Amino acid sequence: MPYLRPLALGLGLAVAAFSAPMLNAAEHEATNPAVKARQAQMTLYAFNLGTIGAMAQEKIPYDAEAASAAASNLASLTLLDASAMWPAGTDADSITGTRALPDLWANFPEVSTKIQTLQAAAGAMADAAGTDLAALQAAMGPLGAACGDCHKAYRVPD
Amino acid sequence: MPYLRPLALGLGLAVAAFSAPMLNAAEHEATNPAVKARQAQMTLYAFNLGTIGAMAQEKIPYDAEAASAAASNLASLTLLDASAMWPAGTDADSITGTRALPDLWANFPEVSTKIQTLQAAAGAMADAAGTDLAALQAAMGPLGAACGDCHKAYRVPD
Repeated sequence: MPYLRPLALGLGLAVAAFSAPMLNAAEHEATNPAVKARQAQMTLYAFNLGTIGAMAQEKIPYDAEAASAAASNLASLTLLDASAMWPAGTDADSITGTRALPDLWANFPEVSTKIQTLQAAAGAMADAAGTDLAALQAAMGPLGAACGDCHKAYRVPD
Repeated sequence: MPYLRPLALGLGLAVAAFSAPMLNAAEHEATNPAVKARQAQMTLYAFNLGTIGAMAQEKIPYDAEAASAAASNLASLTLLDASAMWPAGTDADSITGTRALPDLWANFPEVSTKIQTLQAAAGAMADAAGTDLAALQAAMGPLGAACGDCHKAYRVPD
């Protein structure tokens, strides 16, 4: 099953991308409303990604309707205007309860490119997820990579 | 300023609608991923509603771009497919960390109607918010009422 290698990579990145910040939020809960809002967006990413990820890994049966709903949710969530959720002064050097590195605020053109990559990968997943399991699995690699790429660059490492 | 009466009512409902569940979440934090996801959706409602609500109440200056972004976010969030976030057995009689009444699961046709009312009110706000302050204020009453209407029927009272 040669396609499983990039799939596993994508899923591994996606799972790693979302498990740690929730642990962090529990340890040092954010009080800033903007930080809470962006963490809520991540929680909704993780919830919907959890459904399609479990199907991709064949841990739960493939269900075209549920896959499509989760993937459409994910795509919609990536398209939210996040500008108010990332105010200056809410990086991990300035406040507790966040793992967002100051570099994120210093590299907006690159951040914007990474967000567009995520939006494109989530849109492709929304188009594919309801087709069949193979299409869903093929769309998972780029999606997991997009999550991981931004977290690797702009999040305090584990 | 006769328009302020329905406006104040709408805002009062909206503020009451979102302040209590977050207190509850802190007191008895949800562990069920579906409950966390729907609470995250409510957090994002509250964050975006906070921006347009503060403008409507003239607590912060009206800003067409920020108002439009927040209202568009709110409208998108109301259109998420929420079916996976409300599984049976996640009512307040069954688990801690939620204030969702069992009646919600017993009245899906009515719940669905209330959700459609919220979607319409949020859509109208998204259309109005970027026009001017008066248009934003006029759209606030139905939006706050839609929030409060569902919470009054289906949430454990304060």
